[in-house]
Amino acid sequence: MTQTHRIQVPTRGDTDVIDINDLVKSAVDEGRIRDGLVCVAVIGSTAAITTTEAEPGLLTHDLKAFYEKLAPADAYYQHEQTWHDDNGHAHVRASALGPSVTIPLIDGRLALGTWQQIVLIDFDTRARRREVVIQIVGE
Amino acid sequence: MTQTHRIQVPTRGDTDVIDINDLVKSAVDEGRIRDGLVCVAVIGSTAAITTTEAEPGLLTHDLKAFYEKLAPADAYYQHEQTWHDDNGHAHVRASALGPSVTIPLIDGRLALGTWQQIVLIDFDTRARRREVVIQIVGE
Amino acid sequence: MTQTHRIQVPTRGDTDVIDINDLVKSAVDEGRIRDGLVCVAVIGSTAAITTTEAEPGLLTHDLKAFYEKLAPADAYYQHEQTWHDDNGHAHVRASALGPSVTIPLIDGRLALGTWQQIVLIDFDTRARRREVVIQIVGE
Repeated sequence: MTQTHRIQVPTRGDTDVIDINDLVKSAVDEGRIRDGLVCVAVIGSTAAITTTEAEPGLLTHDLKAFYEKLAPADAYYQHEQTWHDDNGHAHVRASALGPSVTIPLIDGRLALGTWQQIVLIDFDTRARRREVVIQIVGE
Repeated sequence: MTQTHRIQVPTRGDTDVIDINDLVKSAVDEGRIRDGLVCVAVIGSTAAITTTEAEPGLLTHDLKAFYEKLAPADAYYQHEQTWHDDNGHAHVRASALGPSVTIPLIDGRLALGTWQQIVLIDFDTRARRREVVIQIVGE
Repeated sequence: MTQTHRIQVPTRGDTDVIDINDLVKSAVDEGRIRDGLVCVAVIGSTAAITTTEAEPGLLTHDLKAFYEKLAPADAYYQHEQTWHDDNGHAHVRASALGPSVTIPLIDGRLALGTWQQIVLIDFDTRARRREVVIQIVGE
């Protein structure tokens, strides 16, 4: 069996890290699949999905500081010459992290730790409305 | 249902970023699965799969510059003492990015943005012929 | 069909890179699914899963040196103010790499290269007993 859920997530951009764990859990709870794989994927090439502990230090400071050092916003990106825009760093950061995460589903529960939540990171340079797809395959 | 496709992709190595999105779409179109998960995986430990916008700035400059800064080719890698080769940086980059990406398939279409393509990155230090597996699970 | 396997992996922490490939293969061999997807996921937000060549240079030196440079242990992390602990770098590294890897299963074999093994990396600052879930979906 396969089930598809789509959620819309407003972001502020600029490496905004958003805890979407409860949204994913709600999608899982709506369906009838109890065991399988849950793939959470964001549409677009300037955002990414991963897991982290959803506490303010990591969400609002540490991950942002990490990505700013990893691929600085003010470095040279040839992408910005192509489109005359300013989000080359957002593309590079998003590619390095990846657009989706896949988590086992066991007896209706996501295989995550107590202090481990699924997050959307929007690296783009402006506020956006992101579409996240939650695809569940199993039985 | 499960469907397996294998494609061969020639690369030039040296962080060659290759748009394989149309190859993945063709594989999906050949089969009968319409909804599920599409896992795109490269065989080997010096290449990786992710998504990015397939435009020349990112493909030929920005991602390569990023990975050269991230894990420089001329840094010290103990791996190169083990095998007396020169691709320690390729292994480190490939491990950091990961060998596969999983994308939802919805009504026969990959859940990707208009400017978001699946790419193979070959970090090795020589041209290679890469085997990429596209495994589709669904219904 | 879906099959769930859980394994316990003792680690030493401190970016300990552990080859779990044989454990994953044993789990696959125990079950009846021959074709599908194998998702290997670690529970918790300070560890991650990827693939690399399991040789001593990469396992004991290169990946550790890479992550120490990427997110240094002695940098400032606001996370450590929240909990008065010392593992901010472990959280950042684990989020950047991701908690799971998904590998195609074809005729009972994982789609990996000869010199490519699935590894668990424990970034935390102490020895831990990690729970790794191997979820197989297919037929």
